[in-house]
Amino acid sequence: MADQRPLSLVSICGSLRKGSLNAAVQRALPELAPAGVTIQPLFGIADMPLYNADIQAEGFPKSVTDMAESIRRADGLIFVSPEYNYSIPGVLKNAIDWLSRLKDQPFAGKPVLIQSASQGALGGGRMQYHLRQVMVFVEALVFNRPEVMVAAAQNKVDGDLKLTDTATRDLIQQQLAAFETFAREASGK
Amino acid sequence: MADQRPLSLVSICGSLRKGSLNAAVQRALPELAPAGVTIQPLFGIADMPLYNADIQAEGFPKSVTDMAESIRRADGLIFVSPEYNYSIPGVLKNAIDWLSRLKDQPFAGKPVLIQSASQGALGGGRMQYHLRQVMVFVEALVFNRPEVMVAAAQNKVDGDLKLTDTATRDLIQQQLAAFETFAREASGK
Amino acid sequence: MADQRPLSLVSICGSLRKGSLNAAVQRALPELAPAGVTIQPLFGIADMPLYNADIQAEGFPKSVTDMAESIRRADGLIFVSPEYNYSIPGVLKNAIDWLSRLKDQPFAGKPVLIQSASQGALGGGRMQYHLRQVMVFVEALVFNRPEVMVAAAQNKVDGDLKLTDTATRDLIQQQLAAFETFAREASGK
Amino acid sequence: MADQRPLSLVSICGSLRKGSLNAAVQRALPELAPAGVTIQPLFGIADMPLYNADIQAEGFPKSVTDMAESIRRADGLIFVSPEYNYSIPGVLKNAIDWLSRLKDQPFAGKPVLIQSASQGALGGGRMQYHLRQVMVFVEALVFNRPEVMVAAAQNKVDGDLKLTDTATRDLIQQQLAAFETFAREASGK
Repeated sequence: MADQRPLSLVSICGSLRKGSLNAAVQRALPELAPAGVTIQPLFGIADMPLYNADIQAEGFPKSVTDMAESIRRADGLIFVSPEYNYSIPGVLKNAIDWLSRLKDQPFAGKPVLIQSASQGALGGGRMQYHLRQVMVFVEALVFNRPEVMVAAAQNKVDGDLKLTDTATRDLIQQQLAAFETFAREASGK
Repeated sequence: MADQRPLSLVSICGSLRKGSLNAAVQRALPELAPAGVTIQPLFGIADMPLYNADIQAEGFPKSVTDMAESIRRADGLIFVSPEYNYSIPGVLKNAIDWLSRLKDQPFAGKPVLIQSASQGALGGGRMQYHLRQVMVFVEALVFNRPEVMVAAAQNKVDGDLKLTDTATRDLIQQQLAAFETFAREASGK
Repeated sequence: MADQRPLSLVSICGSLRKGSLNAAVQRALPELAPAGVTIQPLFGIADMPLYNADIQAEGFPKSVTDMAESIRRADGLIFVSPEYNYSIPGVLKNAIDWLSRLKDQPFAGKPVLIQSASQGALGGGRMQYHLRQVMVFVEALVFNRPEVMVAAAQNKVDGDLKLTDTATRDLIQQQLAAFETFAREASGK
Repeated sequence: MADQRPLSLVSICGSLRKGSLNAAVQRALPELAPAGVTIQPLFGIADMPLYNADIQAEGFPKSVTDMAESIRRADGLIFVSPEYNYSIPGVLKNAIDWLSRLKDQPFAGKPVLIQSASQGALGGGRMQYHLRQVMVFVEALVFNRPEVMVAAAQNKVDGDLKLTDTATRDLIQQQLAAFETFAREASGK
């Protein structure tokens, strides 16, 4: 494998709050990634206005076109998101709504991985299946299993919001390794 | 029935653009409602910031608390929304995310009706089932059938965006009559 | 409450195997029900043929019409079911498909409660949301929350497959009490 | 492309009745397939018993192991199914439940295409998203778009239940061509 090209992934967190448990998972990804795989966080979703086709008609916001360009350049995309009210957070869905309207739609054919964390028992699972349905429309290639749904996530980080739970870290490591294979096959890299 | 109390409903449109086909459906509701039923549109969702628990910690935006109060006072709530990317528009989900965090959560026990319109063949149906799942969490009482999914909606309005299609108007009228019964039973009115 | 009429519920288990963990939950229901509420198990789903409209044209099987009659007479229906492949077991869905074709469709307006148990971490949750969608079509009235999804159910029964886990029993007790109120309001009892 | 290996697909219909509109779609597939692509129908689902782990413990039925072997040998699988009660027909789900329990699970890594037909306006769409969720668990690779949901299917066949509607035939042809590419990439053929 020594001669494989590096794989460059980006990640988007669906929560905006500073103390987000999902952001904690997102921050742990680079150190859990296989050798040769980089994972860079994208932060623009907080800067996007609420989607409105009348705004779009005047031109896409820079926060949207910038994020789209970062996704297009990447070999794959990782969503790390909480579940709000049994579904996708509005703030994350709003970003997807914007990005999906671009002419050169950045999700098309893109390998996508979904992770979630929550304080509840299901770890955000309901959000994941709604997000999968959204990804059908934008023609992304969503990785199947293993799935990462971090339940009771508040007990799996330390006081600095570092993801410390060993079982969770192991599962994510295993998932990222499997996703690497999936993304390489999809991109022919 | 002459001695029944009037039933007061509110409606929320999931699209912000001026020429929205869903807004056209929303505007038609009052004239299609049974006698004794009023339906008042609520417009605040465009004014809500992207949901962020850190903002919430400083106090709920007035747009959120105002809309919550209007919903609490109403005998029922009607969502009229497009489907974005096979799910709920981020902008509408964002409003629900805000409203759901209030202490006296306004959806609890509230009779809810869902309508959708789209230019496609399914009339926004995929959005409706995601929204139903969201309503489970917030403990709303969602009306079942008949469902209103206005397909090819661009052909069912006139040049002034007035809903003119007779079959659609008849179906909505029939649905509103059934929802009236449902909402009266739920509220004991 | 002393003068309330008794409430008569029926339950259907979505698994056929003798050692079913969901059957263990189902068997525990009568002793966890509030005073004045009876819960009787229905066992016919194993006897129904695979749904085929050509068979239906020759007459509904007795297993179908019998179960339908039991559901019609009941004040509410409880599904206790595993999740198979992230959805409703085929065997349970097959029963619903048969029952839904009857002229006097037994689910219409019926208060319905959904419970699930699994050996996994989500406790059958994915099945529940699919079943909720099915219940929209047949116009049942599905109770919202609290939800009962018994995760790691193999650790919550004893050697005789009796549900012994205290927290689970308490949650079910609480849910049944809330469902009683819901079902009484729906049926005007 | 002249030197490409032939691609061998199999199809499963989710309806058992003789006059099935979905069977009509299934029968049309071979003539709509691209050159070099064969599509063979599999008929075993009517012969499978209702899934029961106790039966499984005594040995898988031959109808199950035969169908599994046919799927394993194929380069891809096409489901053509009605929607029953807003979800997957029990009879089809029952077959999947059986097949998924085999040690060498036949769906794993298999390219899958979903089609549906109905007499209603949505063409079976709700079934498709439930089936997609099922396919996540069994780790199939489900094709995204274009989707084929044949609405008002009774008007798109002739008196011999031959699919005659030109627009539908064109869409299926286009979908099969895109699925061929998808399946070849997935299988490295």
